[in-house]
Amino acid sequence: MQQFVLDTSLFVNPDCRKQFGKTPYSSVSGFIKKAKTKKKKAEFYMPPIVFRELSHFTEKGSSRLSTVVKKRAPNLYGIYIPAAILYTFIDDVRMRVNKGLRLAEEFARDNKPDNRAKLNKLRAKYREAMRRGMVDSKEDLEVILLAYELGATIVTSDEGMVEMANKIGVEWIEAERFGALLKSI
Amino acid sequence: MQQFVLDTSLFVNPDCRKQFGKTPYSSVSGFIKKAKTKKKKAEFYMPPIVFRELSHFTEKGSSRLSTVVKKRAPNLYGIYIPAAILYTFIDDVRMRVNKGLRLAEEFARDNKPDNRAKLNKLRAKYREAMRRGMVDSKEDLEVILLAYELGATIVTSDEGMVEMANKIGVEWIEAERFGALLKSI
Repeated sequence: MQQFVLDTSLFVNPDCRKQFGKTPYSSVSGFIKKAKTKKKKAEFYMPPIVFRELSHFTEKGSSRLSTVVKKRAPNLYGIYIPAAILYTFIDDVRMRVNKGLRLAEEFARDNKPDNRAKLNKLRAKYREAMRRGMVDSKEDLEVILLAYELGATIVTSDEGMVEMANKIGVEWIEAERFGALLKSI
Repeated sequence: MQQFVLDTSLFVNPDCRKQFGKTPYSSVSGFIKKAKTKKKKAEFYMPPIVFRELSHFTEKGSSRLSTVVKKRAPNLYGIYIPAAILYTFIDDVRMRVNKGLRLAEEFARDNKPDNRAKLNKLRAKYREAMRRGMVDSKEDLEVILLAYELGATIVTSDEGMVEMANKIGVEWIEAERFGALLKSI
């Protein structure tokens, strides 16, 4: 029995969900149909807070999904991870925090009055500097830890998750390729 | 034999170092003198990168210190920590990153021309929002992990370190009180 832990990107990211449907809800429906045909060969999991995240995109989809995707959180207080994971994470955060300050300074120096354009640019750049390629939410970490605990495969299109999965020896598959993988099981 | 892992704050923070001397160098000297009298009762440790950090304040002091303070890094790849530590850390970082953006926006909106005053205020506020009360450097984390590994006591005045030490069950003593503790050993 193969086990998979799903990230919301599978149903939310347009490039990923198009394998199963056009909208978040229709991609959930499409996935459920295909998943049912693999009942004896594959198990699917999502932590409860990831179900909740998905429900912000499709409440009905998130609730229907629990018929084929198991709702299970990682055992946060029972799982131990190598200290090196936290170590490299703290170092990464520190460099990003410095970058964030340089950005904030750059925009504080700019006294031209078009605040709306300025703020939009600041937000885009700040997001890129602070969050891209980093595990930046409890939801992402729960997916990784649950897969680590179960020895399962992560299904995601998130760079930061893939990077941490590689550090901790967790198998993953690009969400974009999951439809094809599922077919082959 | 009691074991202590020292943070630089003991010699760098004026409120802490005054127990041993007025300047970073003289406080190192004063500490060495007292530490030698406890040779059979206490062992002192500092990770190599913390020695290096101290050398930015007193190169001579940092180098003399290695006669009484053992230079030893934590076994980063051998120590395992509860996943909950990383989990709460990531959640804390996320909230701080959002705060940092709100701050950057506030200063980007201010188009008054006194850039020097603006930047100073921005830096102070950003530092407070992003780093205060959080383990924000490899040096801090190595002190915590070494104490965790050895079952030793951390000597620090850093809030963020104390908070993480409490989460992971590591003993600590305020650097300000360490002179008095040393006397009583």
